Amino acid sequence: MLSAEIIAIGSELLTPRFQDSNSLYLTEQLNGIGIAVMMKSIVGDDENFLEDAVRHSLARTPVLITIGGLGPTEDDITRKIVARVLQRQLVLNGEILAKLQRRFKARGVEMPANNARQALVLTGSDILENNHGTAPGLWITAEKNHVILLPGPPSELKPMFEASCMPRLRDLAGGIALVQCMFRTAGLPESMLDARIAPIYTKYQNPETTILAKPGQVEVRLTARGKNREEAERLLKELADQIEHELNDFIFARSEQTLEEVVGMYLVMKGATISTAESCTGGMIAERLTDVPGSSRYFRSGLVCYSNESKMELAGIPPLLLEMQGAVSAEVARGLAEAIRVRAGTTIGVAVTGIAGPTGGSTEKPVGTVHIAVATPTGTEHRQFLFPGDRDKIRWQASQAALDMVRRELMKI
Amino acid sequence: MLSAEIIAIGSELLTPRFQDSNSLYLTEQLNGIGIAVMMKSIVGDDENFLEDAVRHSLARTPVLITIGGLGPTEDDITRKIVARVLQRQLVLNGEILAKLQRRFKARGVEMPANNARQALVLTGSDILENNHGTAPGLWITAEKNHVILLPGPPSELKPMFEASCMPRLRDLAGGIALVQCMFRTAGLPESMLDARIAPIYTKYQNPETTILAKPGQVEVRLTARGKNREEAERLLKELADQIEHELNDFIFARSEQTLEEVVGMYLVMKGATISTAESCTGGMIAERLTDVPGSSRYFRSGLVCYSNESKMELAGIPPLLLEMQGAVSAEVARGLAEAIRVRAGTTIGVAVTGIAGPTGGSTEKPVGTVHIAVATPTGTEHRQFLFPGDRDKIRWQASQAALDMVRRELMKI
Repeated sequence: MLSAEIIAIGSELLTPRFQDSNSLYLTEQLNGIGIAVMMKSIVGDDENFLEDAVRHSLARTPVLITIGGLGPTEDDITRKIVARVLQRQLVLNGEILAKLQRRFKARGVEMPANNARQALVLTGSDILENNHGTAPGLWITAEKNHVILLPGPPSELKPMFEASCMPRLRDLAGGIALVQCMFRTAGLPESMLDARIAPIYTKYQNPETTILAKPGQVEVRLTARGKNREEAERLLKELADQIEHELNDFIFARSEQTLEEVVGMYLVMKGATISTAESCTGGMIAERLTDVPGSSRYFRSGLVCYSNESKMELAGIPPLLLEMQGAVSAEVARGLAEAIRVRAGTTIGVAVTGIAGPTGGSTEKPVGTVHIAVATPTGTEHRQFLFPGDRDKIRWQASQAALDMVRRELMKI
Repeated sequence: MLSAEIIAIGSELLTPRFQDSNSLYLTEQLNGIGIAVMMKSIVGDDENFLEDAVRHSLARTPVLITIGGLGPTEDDITRKIVARVLQRQLVLNGEILAKLQRRFKARGVEMPANNARQALVLTGSDILENNHGTAPGLWITAEKNHVILLPGPPSELKPMFEASCMPRLRDLAGGIALVQCMFRTAGLPESMLDARIAPIYTKYQNPETTILAKPGQVEVRLTARGKNREEAERLLKELADQIEHELNDFIFARSEQTLEEVVGMYLVMKGATISTAESCTGGMIAERLTDVPGSSRYFRSGLVCYSNESKMELAGIPPLLLEMQGAVSAEVARGLAEAIRVRAGTTIGVAVTGIAGPTGGSTEKPVGTVHIAVATPTGTEHRQFLFPGDRDKIRWQASQAALDMVRRELMKI
């Protein structure tokens, strides 16, 4: 298996607040064509450290990808250091220079002199065009190494990598084909999901199965590897079909879609509308539903009835019911869902009432107790949950469970 | 200035989805006592790569901190590799072994044999106690290097580092004192904020000024360095006083507090209550306000009136007003704020109506147009905004501006 290293360059990357996301993106792309990432390094704008990092990487790993340090300032040292380690000259490329000048002219400004630095290239290198910024990338083929210099901004790095690097790297990797698929599920905790599918996927080394659990959502990813795409897809399908059959309607998406996007899609498909009445989630379900562009087609209105008074006044819950059952009860959840559905005149009304903590719990109704109801034209579904975790996690899981209940109701319509 | 490197160890750290947060934490701690982080590396559970990384680091940097690879399995290679590079023996430490056995016994289980591996220490190393897990850390003082081995789980790494490493590192760093302060502001874009304070802070090399801009919020951080704490604090105060005077009421917090926490604090302080009526923010303001533990003391209720019908029915906005002014108007924002304040019976009513995009904009009211109104016992404040960015950014900035307007009204009460 071909292996690669990544070096990210820039002093800002060594500050306490900076998360490097470029290397995660590159790792995903590289793994997808069968190239393993063996080491990642982050260095500042320091010539000695960068030289050391580049030199050692070249000695042990065939492919090196550097990120950043290609800008027009003194700080941008990547070209210079890679040239030094590879013992190559830096020469001014007239074509790049002319392109840079045109770019500035189009914006009606004179090109600052230091931008000419971006037209310097190592002798014998291939130029990777940058259609989203000024700094071109470079690909240098040395005796035992391929060195790829990419710009730091993700909006420049990603299109450049996909257009100019992936095809060449795929060839270098020997044309191993990798295909992937993904199932996003809600409603099954990780351990229960694993208990269901482990007997299936453990029979296969290829495809490889990865399970990724977040609060209220578990993802199953399958990656198959083959001599060609057809072989990989055949292997993937054999396992994927079995997993899909077993997980069935716990699967809400087969792509990177969120639950609110899936619910929105169903609402549009069924010509249905929705309204919300939330207590402990405090508006999170409305916020998630309206986070989807175009949600005004189906989202009408929401209530956040945090106090008992607002449950009575805004949603018309009888005071006696609140007193007898308590605000966190099946009856109040049902009442809220039905009331908001009628008042807003929507197909679906969804309501949540619960105890998110950290205070407010009791022996009978501990922190994490949540009642969710979904009112539809044919009746009202209710479920009671006990979510683990802190306030944030409880609120999130409650919103996730509510959206999943809505999804299941919409599938029936 | 003393310098350090960090090596994080573990194959999971080289997968596309893993963000390393330990090194950010360590960087913040180290910078705080005047130690610079010069390089960070991430390697898998691979003996050759780890050995290479450790060897090269020791040759160039006096302090090396490793994270992870101290567990009980074959994969956990950190102790072995560091011992090899430093040419030391690994010996079984009876005390650690006994402690491990006690730990398992307390849980009523037999210690698995491979856990004994965690009791192996390098000759001449200091043991860093782990009160939150099984693997102890190690501190090895070599001829020119200090090598610190820490466990990977943040819940074990952080307390160990603070208790056993920070005091020693502070001494090693020569007792340079660093003090910091921070101002969080809302309502001033980064460029305008910088134009105001650059004439002040550029006069000072020490303290150092860092400006960090996020949508709807700009942070100013000052770091002063002195021979002792008193000197550093004196230097910090001189600049901080001037910045604080200049930014004045744009500052909403002097710590890591969020705007919703600050608004919550004011509401409690003033004995006031709040309700919300949101269109384009879709519940985000209610969600942020109720994200704060204890918010039930002041948050009563919220409306998400996304459709025109819901603005009429739920908030009682006259149809004629909606027709004449349009839903996105000063009049509707004022009407919503006043209506929710009266209906919910709260001190404050805040309302937002706007166009979050991507569609729905016009020449007169482009995407990003947002009207915000805050109704109080003494009247209603209104402001119109035009926020840049995509849907998510516009919604976030609108919620930020609304909370900031509420903060300013509360300061007057």
